[in-house]
Amino acid sequence: MKAIVKESREKGFTMKEVPIPEIGRNEVLIKVEASALCRSDVDVYEWTELVDRANYDLPFIMGHEFSGTIVKMGEDVQGFKEGDRVAGETHIPCGYCETCRTGNQHICGNHMGVLGRTVDGCFAEYIALHQKALIKLPDNVTFEEGAILEPFATAMHAVSKAKPSGKSLLIAGTGTIGQMAIEIAKFLGCTKLFAVDINDYKLEESKKRGADIIINGKKEDLVEIVKRETDGYGVDAVIDFTGNQYVINQEVEAVKIAGTIVHVGMVEKPLTYNNFMYGVVYKELIVTGIFGRRMYETWTEVMNILKTGNIDLKSFVAKEMRLEDFDQALKDFSSVSGRIVFKD
Amino acid sequence: MKAIVKESREKGFTMKEVPIPEIGRNEVLIKVEASALCRSDVDVYEWTELVDRANYDLPFIMGHEFSGTIVKMGEDVQGFKEGDRVAGETHIPCGYCETCRTGNQHICGNHMGVLGRTVDGCFAEYIALHQKALIKLPDNVTFEEGAILEPFATAMHAVSKAKPSGKSLLIAGTGTIGQMAIEIAKFLGCTKLFAVDINDYKLEESKKRGADIIINGKKEDLVEIVKRETDGYGVDAVIDFTGNQYVINQEVEAVKIAGTIVHVGMVEKPLTYNNFMYGVVYKELIVTGIFGRRMYETWTEVMNILKTGNIDLKSFVAKEMRLEDFDQALKDFSSVSGRIVFKD
Amino acid sequence: MKAIVKESREKGFTMKEVPIPEIGRNEVLIKVEASALCRSDVDVYEWTELVDRANYDLPFIMGHEFSGTIVKMGEDVQGFKEGDRVAGETHIPCGYCETCRTGNQHICGNHMGVLGRTVDGCFAEYIALHQKALIKLPDNVTFEEGAILEPFATAMHAVSKAKPSGKSLLIAGTGTIGQMAIEIAKFLGCTKLFAVDINDYKLEESKKRGADIIINGKKEDLVEIVKRETDGYGVDAVIDFTGNQYVINQEVEAVKIAGTIVHVGMVEKPLTYNNFMYGVVYKELIVTGIFGRRMYETWTEVMNILKTGNIDLKSFVAKEMRLEDFDQALKDFSSVSGRIVFKD
Amino acid sequence: MKAIVKESREKGFTMKEVPIPEIGRNEVLIKVEASALCRSDVDVYEWTELVDRANYDLPFIMGHEFSGTIVKMGEDVQGFKEGDRVAGETHIPCGYCETCRTGNQHICGNHMGVLGRTVDGCFAEYIALHQKALIKLPDNVTFEEGAILEPFATAMHAVSKAKPSGKSLLIAGTGTIGQMAIEIAKFLGCTKLFAVDINDYKLEESKKRGADIIINGKKEDLVEIVKRETDGYGVDAVIDFTGNQYVINQEVEAVKIAGTIVHVGMVEKPLTYNNFMYGVVYKELIVTGIFGRRMYETWTEVMNILKTGNIDLKSFVAKEMRLEDFDQALKDFSSVSGRIVFKD
Repeated sequence: MKAIVKESREKGFTMKEVPIPEIGRNEVLIKVEASALCRSDVDVYEWTELVDRANYDLPFIMGHEFSGTIVKMGEDVQGFKEGDRVAGETHIPCGYCETCRTGNQHICGNHMGVLGRTVDGCFAEYIALHQKALIKLPDNVTFEEGAILEPFATAMHAVSKAKPSGKSLLIAGTGTIGQMAIEIAKFLGCTKLFAVDINDYKLEESKKRGADIIINGKKEDLVEIVKRETDGYGVDAVIDFTGNQYVINQEVEAVKIAGTIVHVGMVEKPLTYNNFMYGVVYKELIVTGIFGRRMYETWTEVMNILKTGNIDLKSFVAKEMRLEDFDQALKDFSSVSGRIVFKD
Repeated sequence: MKAIVKESREKGFTMKEVPIPEIGRNEVLIKVEASALCRSDVDVYEWTELVDRANYDLPFIMGHEFSGTIVKMGEDVQGFKEGDRVAGETHIPCGYCETCRTGNQHICGNHMGVLGRTVDGCFAEYIALHQKALIKLPDNVTFEEGAILEPFATAMHAVSKAKPSGKSLLIAGTGTIGQMAIEIAKFLGCTKLFAVDINDYKLEESKKRGADIIINGKKEDLVEIVKRETDGYGVDAVIDFTGNQYVINQEVEAVKIAGTIVHVGMVEKPLTYNNFMYGVVYKELIVTGIFGRRMYETWTEVMNILKTGNIDLKSFVAKEMRLEDFDQALKDFSSVSGRIVFKD
Repeated sequence: MKAIVKESREKGFTMKEVPIPEIGRNEVLIKVEASALCRSDVDVYEWTELVDRANYDLPFIMGHEFSGTIVKMGEDVQGFKEGDRVAGETHIPCGYCETCRTGNQHICGNHMGVLGRTVDGCFAEYIALHQKALIKLPDNVTFEEGAILEPFATAMHAVSKAKPSGKSLLIAGTGTIGQMAIEIAKFLGCTKLFAVDINDYKLEESKKRGADIIINGKKEDLVEIVKRETDGYGVDAVIDFTGNQYVINQEVEAVKIAGTIVHVGMVEKPLTYNNFMYGVVYKELIVTGIFGRRMYETWTEVMNILKTGNIDLKSFVAKEMRLEDFDQALKDFSSVSGRIVFKD
Repeated sequence: MKAIVKESREKGFTMKEVPIPEIGRNEVLIKVEASALCRSDVDVYEWTELVDRANYDLPFIMGHEFSGTIVKMGEDVQGFKEGDRVAGETHIPCGYCETCRTGNQHICGNHMGVLGRTVDGCFAEYIALHQKALIKLPDNVTFEEGAILEPFATAMHAVSKAKPSGKSLLIAGTGTIGQMAIEIAKFLGCTKLFAVDINDYKLEESKKRGADIIINGKKEDLVEIVKRETDGYGVDAVIDFTGNQYVINQEVEAVKIAGTIVHVGMVEKPLTYNNFMYGVVYKELIVTGIFGRRMYETWTEVMNILKTGNIDLKSFVAKEMRLEDFDQALKDFSSVSGRIVFKD
């Protein structure tokens, strides 16, 4: 089969013929029907310093966002069958460490397999996947939509920690996952949603997706607007997709006493809080983060929501391309809003 | 001023002239702009056995659902001012017992004052109200709507315990508060809402208000339908407004493992669980109830929701009458859907 | 090997030679070092109506409380190795249903294997056990003590739901698991522990184990004593091991507003609440139950506690016998306090 | 009466005669029986930059940790009576803002009165105190002990957020409140308590108070020791009393995946996390803080614990002095372990 392979510790990729993978008895073979390009794939392509430091074994097949059809079953796989339409979870936890055994397998610190990094990924015709990473697709979700469920579930996870139902929420950073979070938060009854970005185009999209108040952080005073719109109390919760220190310090001011800040955005450097004592401690904030998706509470909620048919997942598909056009997709990545989906 | 007064321990009421109430320094005087008739007012009118047993002092002015304008301030009242448009909380907790001091003043067991029972109520031109029971009306809520906020907040309280965001919910009993709960649950992102009643007219209304699946409990098998529609798992949560033993035993079967049942409906007699061990204990259900509204988390959520303008509170006002027509209102009570609101 | 086998649907058991079990690749073979007799084993021996109704396949090896040493590893078992000293969890969840996937595998409703019922049990020289059911023994826990970890973890599970740290707790029914719950609750900082039974001997033992106030429910007024000792508020939580309707109705009265009742004791018949509305709903109680042990939060807490060496697990071993004396053990069961442990 | 008064914005204090305070109708007059010296009183004495910036009105009577006897009742005070032995809460929330009305009055951001700063304090013969700040003393707590309940309750609040029952805990910084936290955490069943300091004398005291493992952060590697003693997973929770950036970054490493860090210690400068992404976000830590004591859940738990008689509160009284010796007390402050208590 053809596959996008990472073969050397430098910028680049190789499209080449590789054997269809063998499956273990806890795995299934999936015919990849659609896959999507994530920022982290671009990082792997670029072979950034952060990626280099992780010291992955080479070669590996890239890609981790996808949907497909089970075409072959490992003998110990249960709860699935040939022909099932599925999406894939990126993380394959060890399953037996204390973290896994006490409700946090999604952030297993023992031997976490990662699709498209330590385990061969989905930019290929077929993928072998552990049964732990299988997620059944609802009938009303197409393969193209299924390919972007993984980032959608990341947004869901962030929102579920911010608990915006009947409350106000600030979403800082409105890239694809931020936009997904806006739709989810509004679906779940967020009563006042602030979206912050420095890109007016994205802010306009935020508005269409349900944001009640949009703020251009470059031109407007985030803290002042939030305070004014919340009778001076601040928002109930914040989800940060920026990872930007300047913005994060504003979030601390803009969130209410005893509020919550959920971090998703990559904080690449050391992070300095200007006023941790007055901002976080005395206000008794909850500062936390999410990584991946809870296995499988997040997925269950995602499926519940999608089955209603009231979220237009398709709208997050920016364009469809063929895997052969991978090179072009890398070039287009930054200029599109939503995901580039590969489909043959 | 004129007022609807309960003067004797038997069926009936008196409309009479009484003095405008004096206010204490922690109270305000409110000009009643609109009030609403609740089932419990009918019980007081009828002087049911349950009401009789409570042994209230007579006479008292009836009524507890209302909105109005502050016309006079007690000297120790803070956070409100003359001219403020307000609704009233029915319960006036002692404020100093351990229950009150640890987050449960709304169910204070010490000396809870109750509007229209132990404290003169709102079926009058004016009412004196303790500052603890004052709730500021949002600008976009009319007085007519404000008069039915108290039952709406009861629905909110029930829903907040059932936590239906991104989950399924069964609402059993679709009287006014049940219908309100349907609207709130859907607003908060309930993904599959079952409404159960034995009245097809009410079920049709439930559907309009957002119920995904309606079940006539007399003609259809509640448990079977719920199981079928939830892949056999059952609903995540139930809110019971029926108080009916037969229905409650079905709810235990219809709710999923580790699910929640929230009771609001009056269970008048001893309640028998047919299979408490297999139904409740082995399934690790959470069985709980609500009484009144959390002071003031529930009210805050209600205001957040109403300020969005996306819930049509007006639709729960069945008809408007004058307080002079109280007799007629009592007669009409059972035949209308929604609240009868008094307004002069 | 020799084993205690249930061969027919009537009172009795057979001690006989059976083959050492084969293990699957997700299983280990364990040399049973010690095992213990539970009330439910007596029920299986007696073949009670309840047991009969469950319609188990015959024959099966009885017993589910034990400890042992891993002597053979299935090829897919991870996190354990030959020579490991282990205890066994009784429940073997399917692992792939929604209940299992969302944090409640211990009460899986799909295909739950049960040791000593649907899966061959531990009253034998060897047992084959799925890796999901393996619990590593701390070094300071002997095999005799390890044999009674399963009921100890049941007590832990109940206590963890009652959350007695810094609070008051009522434990109704002071059999072995009740006594274990007393020790655990006091270890976790329960500040006022009431123990209720109708057996003075057990109450004396409760006192030794840490109960602050003992109540003989036959001679004393449970509700009155609890109210008096809690300034009239009632206890923060109750754990019921009695399953007795009369006692349960008293618990509802004795627990404080917004308190919790955790059910463990077998409620064999329909359960009637005399005053569900005033007792449960208006007080906003949380009524819930536990079944088995959370996999594996409960086990982790048990190990944390046992590793301190501050709970004398040995004190719950009433006597040691040989498996050959199974007949005698059945006879002695009701007259001893603590568990009869089999050890060769 | 004599009182310790702060009269000017510079180092110093005045002991002088002032009138016995008048009380409002929501206040009581308390004869101060014992009071204690807190680090923040020393700051007020020194008139540090931070204190200066707060811009308090002068003059005011200093002091906020005390116990006493009610000698006069304001007419609207309920739940207390003349002769009651009480301690005082330092914070007097407004009571009517949204923060106060939704369960967080202890961190009211509206008009929070602070004893010994914006409201006359307890370093005097009498103090006028709002009924909201009254805490009844249990009979078995002496006035000397009562004088140090406020810091003890701060420790309780921190511990209640770290939830150490049946879990491991790291306490960094073992000043008086840190030592109190050790005793409370062990009382509540913390199964492995690490105490960290750079002072061996304090660490020895920590050991006596129940710490299982003591670490001198100057000589030993905190992270390595914690990991070694927790099978590599890290501690379940951390309470930080140091406010020290270097230590805080170690805590992030030493805490387990999905663990909790509770901040109490004053972080005086900007705080930099070296690796926020890997340390906090990817591990899904909960970083939070406490300020004061929950009103009144914390106080209720404190009373529950103290009534058992199993915590030797007296051991936290370093020495008793007379208020006349205030000058000497300021000098002795840093050299004693525990609180200096004033008593005449």
